[in-house]
Amino acid sequence: MKFLYSFNSKLNNSATRKKTSLCRGILRIPIWLLLTFLFWSVSDGGKVLVIPLDGSHWLSMRLIVERLHQRGHQAVVIAPDASLRIQPSIHYTLKTFAVPYTKGYMKEEIKKFGHVPFSYQSFLAKTTELFVRARNISTLFFNTCQQLLYNKEMIAYLEESQFDVVFMVPVSPCGQIIAEHLSIPSVYYTRGLQCGLEGTQCPNPPSYVPKFFTGNTHHMKFHQRVKNFLVSFLEPLTCSIIYLPYNVLGTAFLQREVSMRELYSQASIWLLRYDFVLDYPQPLMPNMVLIGGINCEKKSPLTQEFEAIVNASGEHGIVVFSLGSMVSEIPMKKAMEIAAALGTIPQTVLWRYTGEVPSNLANNTRLVKWLPQNDLLAHPKARAFITHAGSHGIYEGICNAVPMVLMPLFGDQMDNAVRMESRGAGVTLNVLEMTSKDLSDALKAVIYDKTYKENIKRLSELHLDRPIHPLDLAVHWVEFVMKHKGAPHLRPAAHDLNWVQYHSIDVIAFLLAVVLIVLYISLECCLFCFRKCGWKKGRLNKKSKSKSQ
Amino acid sequence: MKFLYSFNSKLNNSATRKKTSLCRGILRIPIWLLLTFLFWSVSDGGKVLVIPLDGSHWLSMRLIVERLHQRGHQAVVIAPDASLRIQPSIHYTLKTFAVPYTKGYMKEEIKKFGHVPFSYQSFLAKTTELFVRARNISTLFFNTCQQLLYNKEMIAYLEESQFDVVFMVPVSPCGQIIAEHLSIPSVYYTRGLQCGLEGTQCPNPPSYVPKFFTGNTHHMKFHQRVKNFLVSFLEPLTCSIIYLPYNVLGTAFLQREVSMRELYSQASIWLLRYDFVLDYPQPLMPNMVLIGGINCEKKSPLTQEFEAIVNASGEHGIVVFSLGSMVSEIPMKKAMEIAAALGTIPQTVLWRYTGEVPSNLANNTRLVKWLPQNDLLAHPKARAFITHAGSHGIYEGICNAVPMVLMPLFGDQMDNAVRMESRGAGVTLNVLEMTSKDLSDALKAVIYDKTYKENIKRLSELHLDRPIHPLDLAVHWVEFVMKHKGAPHLRPAAHDLNWVQYHSIDVIAFLLAVVLIVLYISLECCLFCFRKCGWKKGRLNKKSKSKSQ
Repeated sequence: MKFLYSFNSKLNNSATRKKTSLCRGILRIPIWLLLTFLFWSVSDGGKVLVIPLDGSHWLSMRLIVERLHQRGHQAVVIAPDASLRIQPSIHYTLKTFAVPYTKGYMKEEIKKFGHVPFSYQSFLAKTTELFVRARNISTLFFNTCQQLLYNKEMIAYLEESQFDVVFMVPVSPCGQIIAEHLSIPSVYYTRGLQCGLEGTQCPNPPSYVPKFFTGNTHHMKFHQRVKNFLVSFLEPLTCSIIYLPYNVLGTAFLQREVSMRELYSQASIWLLRYDFVLDYPQPLMPNMVLIGGINCEKKSPLTQEFEAIVNASGEHGIVVFSLGSMVSEIPMKKAMEIAAALGTIPQTVLWRYTGEVPSNLANNTRLVKWLPQNDLLAHPKARAFITHAGSHGIYEGICNAVPMVLMPLFGDQMDNAVRMESRGAGVTLNVLEMTSKDLSDALKAVIYDKTYKENIKRLSELHLDRPIHPLDLAVHWVEFVMKHKGAPHLRPAAHDLNWVQYHSIDVIAFLLAVVLIVLYISLECCLFCFRKCGWKKGRLNKKSKSKSQ
Repeated sequence: MKFLYSFNSKLNNSATRKKTSLCRGILRIPIWLLLTFLFWSVSDGGKVLVIPLDGSHWLSMRLIVERLHQRGHQAVVIAPDASLRIQPSIHYTLKTFAVPYTKGYMKEEIKKFGHVPFSYQSFLAKTTELFVRARNISTLFFNTCQQLLYNKEMIAYLEESQFDVVFMVPVSPCGQIIAEHLSIPSVYYTRGLQCGLEGTQCPNPPSYVPKFFTGNTHHMKFHQRVKNFLVSFLEPLTCSIIYLPYNVLGTAFLQREVSMRELYSQASIWLLRYDFVLDYPQPLMPNMVLIGGINCEKKSPLTQEFEAIVNASGEHGIVVFSLGSMVSEIPMKKAMEIAAALGTIPQTVLWRYTGEVPSNLANNTRLVKWLPQNDLLAHPKARAFITHAGSHGIYEGICNAVPMVLMPLFGDQMDNAVRMESRGAGVTLNVLEMTSKDLSDALKAVIYDKTYKENIKRLSELHLDRPIHPLDLAVHWVEFVMKHKGAPHLRPAAHDLNWVQYHSIDVIAFLLAVVLIVLYISLECCLFCFRKCGWKKGRLNKKSKSKSQ
């Protein structure tokens, strides 16, 4: 397998060098297909069933799938036919299944979701809208899962294919239901643990482990600890409600009673996009493997167009600005405020933006429909990074040691921003409330105040000083699970205990009962002795009194 | 530094090949010294202060020190002048300090300690003797620490030497007191966590994490959970008593109030000789690095003498028998029982034994004063391993997939044995109570019952399938701590909380108070309304009654 890998990666490198030659590129495809076929037929590689989630998750998950393919494994990706990001590739076989919505609907939903943070609404109205949209997305996931499980053709194909592992994103437990059905182990790929946490049996003390969506750091004041405690107390309940339909669906499909907690507890390995330069230190379980920063791997030289822009920026350098794949246009009023702020700095700003061009756009600002974010941040002229604080972007900022201006919009972005700001590596702004001056000040701060650069440089050095690259680590563990048919030696016995047993409530009750009984008996004995003595004394007194009379 | 490493390791490899040539060996020493001097003067290596513990710990800790030296770092080992195992080496500078006991005393104490498990005494007498001897050893450690801290010459040398890290065994907090005094970070090297656990802030639920010295597995019945809970409840108290003198010593030496808990919480990295094929899965903290099996690294070809014995064993193969470095002779009665059992199997037994030769020793048994345990176990003819279940031996058994007969004597050995037996990789015997037949049956079982071999083979495969070798991992983290002056990003905020805050007792009390106040106010309001209504009704009734009258 190692021979195949080195051969394959050499081929890959040479292919990259020849990228500019179109003819050679076209010729490469059948060669690749031929080689892929040869690898699959002669190698001792395994078969990986990939159940991803559409969106930015896929961008880094794909890296692992590609590397697995390079190492001689066969990957089959299953995805809804309305997926926006999950496209066919020479590295895997894409199998799609029909869903009752279109790509257009998906695009529209994402666009609407992206508009929410920029809309001036009352707190209640905004929360309600966010809740409704989140519920819609949740329903979308559920419907997708339902369509997959009741797609007889697809299920028959999966049953026949003899996969070795399910490699999945656990936002939906659909992949785990399939893993159970096929009786094969699973590896999870995720950013956080929220609802799945219960399935890991990982202790998570709310006193210093900030819950996602609270905006807390690991150093909490009393009121923040109260908030964190309440969230951690209510989370299992919320999760039970959200995942209730899956319990019903899973039970019907697997023909046995299943719960979300039980399903998630079956994961052999959790590949977590954690790193303690971003996240705060907390307890971990043996089957959690930290692969934060895995997405920094993909680096290419800049195209001539971008190289020219960067070189023209002179000594001032560049600022990279992107609000992520879900938000590429924003309301004109906000766009103009931002454009005005960008005009106040001497750096060249590369802004990923597909909306109407703001009339006040300064000369130093270049609007682009797409930008090679990691490659631009890796350039020595990168001075600052304006980001929506998605975890992929944050890791790219850390890997390349570029201080950040953080404009979180939704999801875990606020928490990511808080983490970076608490470490002195960036300035967080409220995208709705910020003024032009706020943005301008924040940019000047992260560019000219040396502490930001020093802090992000220190974090970057800590992050990059690791014994093994996260991509190699992730691939190792997927292969481990395939080879050993899971990782049962990493499964804690806590999974076999109920809540009362896990928290030793029965033991404490028993010991308390013993203590109370012992105390009671001792007390009774004392009282008995006391009474005996008192009675004797009383009798003696009586006797002596009667004698004296 | 990388260049130096490869050059150095090539030199090392070639040196190993030429080991048989005495002249070359003698010539090598000055070359080594010269190269060492050159490395230190030209490399960018760091300075490591090693504070080890005499005994088997040192055998594997030394591997890391040697590798650090090969990578261009300078290591200074400080040890009492009565050390038995810690000897001068070309890989480090050994600095000894005077202690009020001799090597002879140490040997005698160890010999006496080794005799306890074989002595027929009442449970109370045996426990008392073990307690007295453990207290003696504890006093010995404390006196050693005291001698070191009050050795002005040594402390002055340490102050001048500008070390980058203290690499130490945390059985005694002496090394951490020195690290605090020198204001440098520390890396711990240990098998278990017992008393130091508090300093890690690692959750350790007694419901499924068996405490050392209980003999429990991770699947506990109710009475075992009670025992485990009681031990985990009493452990902090016991530890406080044991380490109390160090608090006083540390406070006096550092001229500020220190506690053991605070001292241990300063560790940058805990290198733990854990692996989940031996230990049971449990929560971990981010600064815990698992390097179980690190000692399997050291492999050499067998000498002619041992090669001849092994080859002569024929198809039956060999059995390796050692009770560890602390016990090399045992009472004659027990030795004869064992010798009789060994004679019942067709395998050649290599028994490390320095006592009087039992008169009934069979022809298949060869007594040796020392044996290359790991090299013999690595031989394809190794059929079984009779061991005292020390963690080093157990890992060698696992690495080489040799099923075991376990005869635990003291310390964590009973727990190690329970772990191996619970995984079907060995049979545990009580060395005092076992008969010849018991040992013979156990040996035949592990040699001829295929399940033992299959189980240990599976464990071995799981153990050896790792992304990076434990030795490289250990060296990486020592270098990391040197380079980054610690690993503060891995330090959980739990260290900054007191017991009440950590367990959210104040938050729960506050929330309970709020709930009670709300309930009380609601109740009062209800009662008020009820009274109002009742009063009105009463008045109305009264009025209507008076009207009707």
